Amino acid sequence: MTKNITKKIKFTDKGICAPKGFRASGVHVGFRENQKKKDLGLLVSDVMCNAFAVHTQNKVKGAPILVNREHLKDGKAQGIVVNSGNANTCAPNGVQVARETCRLAADALGLKAEDLLVCSTGVIGQEINIETFERGIPRVVKKLSYDDSESLARSIMTTDKITKQVAVSFEVAGKMCHIGAVAKGSGMINPNMATMLSFLTTDVSISREMLRTALLNDVADTYNQIYIDGDTSTNDTVAILANGLAGNPEIDAPGAEFDLFCEALNQVTVTLCRLLAKDGEGATKLIECVVKNAPTKRIARIVSSSVVGSDLVKTAIFGEDANWGRVLCAVGYADADFECAHIDVVLSSQAGDILVCKGSEAVNFSEEKAAKILACDEIRIDVDLHDGSKDAVAYGCDLTFGYVRINGRYRS
Amino acid sequence: MTKNITKKIKFTDKGICAPKGFRASGVHVGFRENQKKKDLGLLVSDVMCNAFAVHTQNKVKGAPILVNREHLKDGKAQGIVVNSGNANTCAPNGVQVARETCRLAADALGLKAEDLLVCSTGVIGQEINIETFERGIPRVVKKLSYDDSESLARSIMTTDKITKQVAVSFEVAGKMCHIGAVAKGSGMINPNMATMLSFLTTDVSISREMLRTALLNDVADTYNQIYIDGDTSTNDTVAILANGLAGNPEIDAPGAEFDLFCEALNQVTVTLCRLLAKDGEGATKLIECVVKNAPTKRIARIVSSSVVGSDLVKTAIFGEDANWGRVLCAVGYADADFECAHIDVVLSSQAGDILVCKGSEAVNFSEEKAAKILACDEIRIDVDLHDGSKDAVAYGCDLTFGYVRINGRYRS
Repeated sequence: MTKNITKKIKFTDKGICAPKGFRASGVHVGFRENQKKKDLGLLVSDVMCNAFAVHTQNKVKGAPILVNREHLKDGKAQGIVVNSGNANTCAPNGVQVARETCRLAADALGLKAEDLLVCSTGVIGQEINIETFERGIPRVVKKLSYDDSESLARSIMTTDKITKQVAVSFEVAGKMCHIGAVAKGSGMINPNMATMLSFLTTDVSISREMLRTALLNDVADTYNQIYIDGDTSTNDTVAILANGLAGNPEIDAPGAEFDLFCEALNQVTVTLCRLLAKDGEGATKLIECVVKNAPTKRIARIVSSSVVGSDLVKTAIFGEDANWGRVLCAVGYADADFECAHIDVVLSSQAGDILVCKGSEAVNFSEEKAAKILACDEIRIDVDLHDGSKDAVAYGCDLTFGYVRINGRYRS
Repeated sequence: MTKNITKKIKFTDKGICAPKGFRASGVHVGFRENQKKKDLGLLVSDVMCNAFAVHTQNKVKGAPILVNREHLKDGKAQGIVVNSGNANTCAPNGVQVARETCRLAADALGLKAEDLLVCSTGVIGQEINIETFERGIPRVVKKLSYDDSESLARSIMTTDKITKQVAVSFEVAGKMCHIGAVAKGSGMINPNMATMLSFLTTDVSISREMLRTALLNDVADTYNQIYIDGDTSTNDTVAILANGLAGNPEIDAPGAEFDLFCEALNQVTVTLCRLLAKDGEGATKLIECVVKNAPTKRIARIVSSSVVGSDLVKTAIFGEDANWGRVLCAVGYADADFECAHIDVVLSSQAGDILVCKGSEAVNFSEEKAAKILACDEIRIDVDLHDGSKDAVAYGCDLTFGYVRINGRYRS
C-alpha cells in the first residue's frame, strides 16, 4: 500500500509557501551584528489554522515555549514570529518579551496575540530586548509575500550552512493539497545557538485531533531520531499549521486519506531530517543507521540512535574506517532488552555495500571496497539484530575537527 | 568523622606492588607491532586472595569477562594475566583462548587455572592467537618482581599518554596495611583500543562479602562517574585482590575499620579516576562537575554525569569559554526528576572561582576573570540545584581536535 501512496506524492518548490494562503518574510533587524544576516522571520496564514506543536523535553525551556503552550491550548494558530541570534532562554523577563512579541505582531497584522506563536534560537542566557522586535516587526510584516519562503528560511539559520526547505503536493478527493516545511539545525542544540526549529504548513483540511496524531506519530521516527551531538536543546520546536484552503472534505478520522496525508508528511520530514543531519555542525557525511528485525519498534529506535550517537562511530566514519567493532559496541550498550549474539552489519553508500560482521563475529572483507564505500558523503549502516521483525532508522553525521572548531570558539 | 579518617591515610609509592606479597611484570611479546611497547602483563599474589570484580554492562562482552565470571564464582583469585593490542572481543574462539591463557599461566606458576583472571584490551573483532600467549607467558613469569608495578602499568597502556598508578597505607589494629592500584583508559572505550581496566591489590585481611560491598559502593561514585566519550566499552573491568598478609584481624562486618578501608579505597580510586579523565583521548583539561543539593544521590550522579558528558560543555571548556548556558542545558536534559528553577553555577580552578548563573538566570560576571580560571588544566563546575541535600561528582575531560584525530584515524 505504501508504494501506491508514495506514487501519488510529488515533490514541488516554494517550501513553506507551497500550500495556499501562506505568506512568509525575513529581515535583518539587529539581533545579530552581521547586517547581511536576516534575524527576524514571520509566517502568516490568510485564515485561522488548526495547529499543533511538539517541544523539547529539556527541563530548562526557552521562554517562547511557555508562551506557545498557552497560545495552543485552543488548538488554533494563524502565524509564527521567529528570531535568531538570541534564544530567549534563562533571560530575565523572557516570558514577558515573548508575550509582547506576539502582541506587537498581532497588532500589525490585525490578529489576536493568542493566535500567534513565537520562537527564538541563538545564545542562551542573554538579555533580550523588546525594542528590537518593536523596530523589526513593522518591517517584516511589510515584506510578507506568498512567494518568499526563502527569506524566512534564511532568517532562522544559525550555524546552518544551507537553508532547509521542502514541499510536496498530492490530491485528496480531487483537490490539490500541499505540505511545505522549513527547518534549521545544525547541532541538535547549537553551541550558543540553541535549537532545532521546524515549521510545517499545509492547506489540507484536517481536524485538530488528526493533525496532532499525524505529527506525534511522525516525529517519533523522524525529528526524534536525529542525533548530532546528543545535546537536547532548550528550544527545539516542531510546529504545524493547517489552514484547510485546499477545500477537501475535512480529514477527521483514520482511513486512506489520512494515510496519504501521513505519508506526505513523512516524505517532507524525512527529507528535512536528512538535510538537518547532513548539515550538522562540522559534518562532512550523513550517517543513517537502519536497525532491522528488532523485538519492538521502540528497541529498533533506541539501537539505531545509539549507533549514530556514538562519538566513536562518528569519528570512524569521518576517518572512512570500516571499524564495525565500534558499531557492535554501540549496539551493545543501547539501553534496551534484546539479544546480541546474531548481529549482522552491512555498510553501504552509492558506491555499493559490504558485509563486515556476521553473527556478531568478524568476517573477511575487502578493505579496499570498504574504503570506496566510505569515501562517499552519505553512509548507511544496516544492523540486523535477527531478534524480531521491527525496523527503525536514525539520522546523524560524522564528528570532525570542524565540530570542535565551531563549538570550541568563544561565544562572541 | 571522614576528616579524622582521612588523616590516617598516607599516599605511598610502589603502586600495585605496595601491599605485601604481590609481584608484577610486563613484557613485549608481539600483540602489538611496536617492539618498545609492552603488551603482556602479569600480577600474582604469594597466597590466595579474596577477590571481586565489576565488569562492563555492555551486552557485547569481551571473552575474558565470560571466563572471569566463571573463575570468580568461589570469590577467590590469586593473579591476573592481561594483554593489550587485541581486546579478544567478537573474535572466533575467543573464550577458548581466554581459558587457555589462564591454564598456561597457571601451569607456569604452579597454580590452578580457575584461580587466575584474564583481561584483554585492544582492537575488537580481530582474531587472537594462543601462540602469542604460549610464547610470552614463560617470559612474563620469569620477570615477576615485588618492585615492578611500572612494567605492568606500561603493559596495559593503549592510547594512554601516562601510566596511572597509586598506593596508600593506613593502620588497622596496629598492623600497617596498603592498597595499590593501576589503571588504563583512555577513552572509556578506546577507538579500536577497547577498554578501561583497573586492578586493585590490598594486603588487608577482609572478608569476601565486605570486599564486595566496599568495591560496589565505591565504583558507583568513581569509575561509573567517568565520562570520556559516552561509549561504554565491551571489556571494562575493575578487579580487586585482597591477600590478608597485613595480618590484621579480618574485617568481616561494618564498623570503624571497614569505614577506614572504604575511605582508603576511595582515595585510591578518586585519584585514578581523575588521572583517567585528565588523560582521556585528546584531552587537554580535566573537568569535574560537582552537583550539590539534589533530591537524591542517584539524581546528583545523573546530573553531574550529564554535564561532563555533554559534547557542548566539553568543547566550551576546550575553548576556555564560560558558556554556562550549555551547563544549564545539560542539567535540564538529564534523565531524572528534579526542579530546574533555582540553579546556581560556579566555575573554578586553581586560579579562583566565579559565579556565572544564579537562580537559573544570567548574572553579570567578569569575562576576564572567567578566562583566567578556564585557562587552567583542571576545571571544576559546581551546580547547586537547591532541591535537596545530596551531592555527587563526575569526572570528564574536554573534547578537542586531538580526540577527533585519534579516533578518526584508520585502525592499522
